[in-house]
Amino acid sequence: MKNVKCAKCVKCGKTYEATPNLTNCECGGILDIIYDYDYIKANMTKEKIASRANNMWRYRELLPVEESTPDTPLRVGWSPLYEADRLAKQLGIKKLWIKDDGQNPTASLKDRASAMAVAKAQEAGAKIIACSSTGNAASSLAGNAAAAGLRTFIFVPERAPKGKVAQLMTFGANVVSVQGDYGQTFELSKAAIEKWGWYNRNAAINPYLSEGKKTVSLEIAEQLNWKMPDYLAISVGDGCTIAGVWKGLKDLYAIGFIDKLPRLISAQAEGCHPINRAIATGEDWFPMEENTIADSIAVGVPRNATKALNAIRESNGIVVNVTDEEIMAAQKLLGATCGVFGEPAGVTGAAGLKKLCEQGVIGANDTVVSVVTGNGLKDVANAIKFCGEPMSLPNDMDLLVKEFDKRGLSVE
Amino acid sequence: MKNVKCAKCVKCGKTYEATPNLTNCECGGILDIIYDYDYIKANMTKEKIASRANNMWRYRELLPVEESTPDTPLRVGWSPLYEADRLAKQLGIKKLWIKDDGQNPTASLKDRASAMAVAKAQEAGAKIIACSSTGNAASSLAGNAAAAGLRTFIFVPERAPKGKVAQLMTFGANVVSVQGDYGQTFELSKAAIEKWGWYNRNAAINPYLSEGKKTVSLEIAEQLNWKMPDYLAISVGDGCTIAGVWKGLKDLYAIGFIDKLPRLISAQAEGCHPINRAIATGEDWFPMEENTIADSIAVGVPRNATKALNAIRESNGIVVNVTDEEIMAAQKLLGATCGVFGEPAGVTGAAGLKKLCEQGVIGANDTVVSVVTGNGLKDVANAIKFCGEPMSLPNDMDLLVKEFDKRGLSVE
Repeated sequence: MKNVKCAKCVKCGKTYEATPNLTNCECGGILDIIYDYDYIKANMTKEKIASRANNMWRYRELLPVEESTPDTPLRVGWSPLYEADRLAKQLGIKKLWIKDDGQNPTASLKDRASAMAVAKAQEAGAKIIACSSTGNAASSLAGNAAAAGLRTFIFVPERAPKGKVAQLMTFGANVVSVQGDYGQTFELSKAAIEKWGWYNRNAAINPYLSEGKKTVSLEIAEQLNWKMPDYLAISVGDGCTIAGVWKGLKDLYAIGFIDKLPRLISAQAEGCHPINRAIATGEDWFPMEENTIADSIAVGVPRNATKALNAIRESNGIVVNVTDEEIMAAQKLLGATCGVFGEPAGVTGAAGLKKLCEQGVIGANDTVVSVVTGNGLKDVANAIKFCGEPMSLPNDMDLLVKEFDKRGLSVE
Repeated sequence: MKNVKCAKCVKCGKTYEATPNLTNCECGGILDIIYDYDYIKANMTKEKIASRANNMWRYRELLPVEESTPDTPLRVGWSPLYEADRLAKQLGIKKLWIKDDGQNPTASLKDRASAMAVAKAQEAGAKIIACSSTGNAASSLAGNAAAAGLRTFIFVPERAPKGKVAQLMTFGANVVSVQGDYGQTFELSKAAIEKWGWYNRNAAINPYLSEGKKTVSLEIAEQLNWKMPDYLAISVGDGCTIAGVWKGLKDLYAIGFIDKLPRLISAQAEGCHPINRAIATGEDWFPMEENTIADSIAVGVPRNATKALNAIRESNGIVVNVTDEEIMAAQKLLGATCGVFGEPAGVTGAAGLKKLCEQGVIGANDTVVSVVTGNGLKDVANAIKFCGEPMSLPNDMDLLVKEFDKRGLSVE
């Protein structure tokens, strides 16, 4: 790769050649991909990007793939960025955009990481990719790999919801349900990956995945014509996504495509916020219980805390924790004002933004992008719990009129 | 509208001025929008389209809206068209493309019709849109209207699944659950729409909706560089979608953008196929029971049978009925070979294609596009029923090896 210098441990600084099947540093630290920005500056122009297909590979000079590596088959990325003027007014801020990343092939931002995993697995000559997860990482891997003709082995804990397992099976994944908790599931997957040499798609182990995720911020920048907002709000679980988002912004700044870096808003659930707690206290992170309905960010032991904490601190970021009720209120608010239906973890960034507006931390002069990281159809059960009951009536116009009157419902 | 001549009844031929709030002909027949193809030919070029945003409004010269009518806010359309080479090989056909229309804001093709309803409601100066439905029509209306700042009243029968109601409530719709069956629900909605003058989004009543739906075939044509396949396979319920698809193809043929019209493959469920029965027998359609899990096409009394039958006959189309088992097998086949997860009704077109290939009706020299009309996340319950069970094991490598051996599962 002419555009990549090496991979460097974020913990001890040791560097490695950027081979396709990199995992963690021997010290246990997570690797970061280091680019040759001079090379990229000489080879990447805004015009060149604009002429390309509307998917994440339009930024390939900034991505850790060989020039000859083909685009992956599913259309990942280039999700819509909506101007949310009515919601901005309601929140009392100058300008708000909603990036709906639920509009991806398997309905979450994780498709960006999984497409990258597929590309790197193909570079490595691998025919099988594996991971342990029950969530969006697993379904996005199963879908993107199936489309590319690669096989997958996916390890899930026995408590995995049947719906999520069904999605994996539909994509033709070989699913191993491990009789035990997530820790044991991870162990078995690790042993199997080592034994059979499968390509490893575990975020916070494979350093290329957050490079895929960063394309969400590259897109936001391009969709805003390279004029960056004051803040970028996003939900945080294991830390890989916010780390990727920040990496993308720094990349663009380094090559001179943007002249301003937004401050990150790291939104976590009140019931599980080890990363935000570390920022708030200035101390290191330590494990926390996982008490939130926002399952995709219920991560008590964040696997990518180092990169996430660096990102929030470097950006002079703000942390905010929200209750499950605030999360579900944000789901309804985004639905009703923007027509965007996000899963609970997906709208946690917006919930955090709302809270900061109410607290006066963000205000009338501020511009914000809020990323919705997954589609609400992924978790209809919680929407049902929180959305309230419809009006219930027989087929009778008089009763309908009375019911509307009772509710003070305008019909005009 | 300079590009539209009038609206014409498909039953009695009576014409109407194309005002924004058209409903059925006084004879009860459905109206069809008649275009001025000479005007369109003089004003629409392939280059002009190519320069526009990637959504359904890029074809606005062929759509029944004023030049000044703005694009609707959600990004509807320009869903991906995937080359499905491996699946084509498996089916023994020359070439196959899968159009994944589950990649739309509310995850179904119906977004195209609802976006059109929003545009026409705005032209009519309406602030409220109403419909009766529990399915994709309702959720797409609720989402697209919310994004445009329009209010919605949606009437659902009391048996409506809670998950679908939750989606409507999340989009801020005023949902009226009618204590009765669908007929009574429709009646109450009709009375309310008449009383309060709300804009009517009921397909087969509002003639503009199928004009929105036709954008799926306009896109297929453009994505194939205007070279049309031999066949286009699609699932059929009330008939509006296949009628829209055919209208789009005929439009393109009329203005000289394509020089070949594909034959339509009309796929219905074995347990509910009144339209296909009419084609097969050469007689008129009559009601049929609704015995299929593919809820979006379980329509025993198709509201747009006339246009659908015309479309199938004009295209020299083929009809095929598939069992629920064949539908669910197609869901898995598309998932495992293409990474596309469609709802049961969404993959019925592909199920029909597979059956025709097995019967030798479609073969080695044929090229086909199959449209997936909705996302599998809309109905996870059926995927769970049909997908099979994962392997279940403790955290033990020896047992894993034995299990793989037993199943003859290759690990390379």
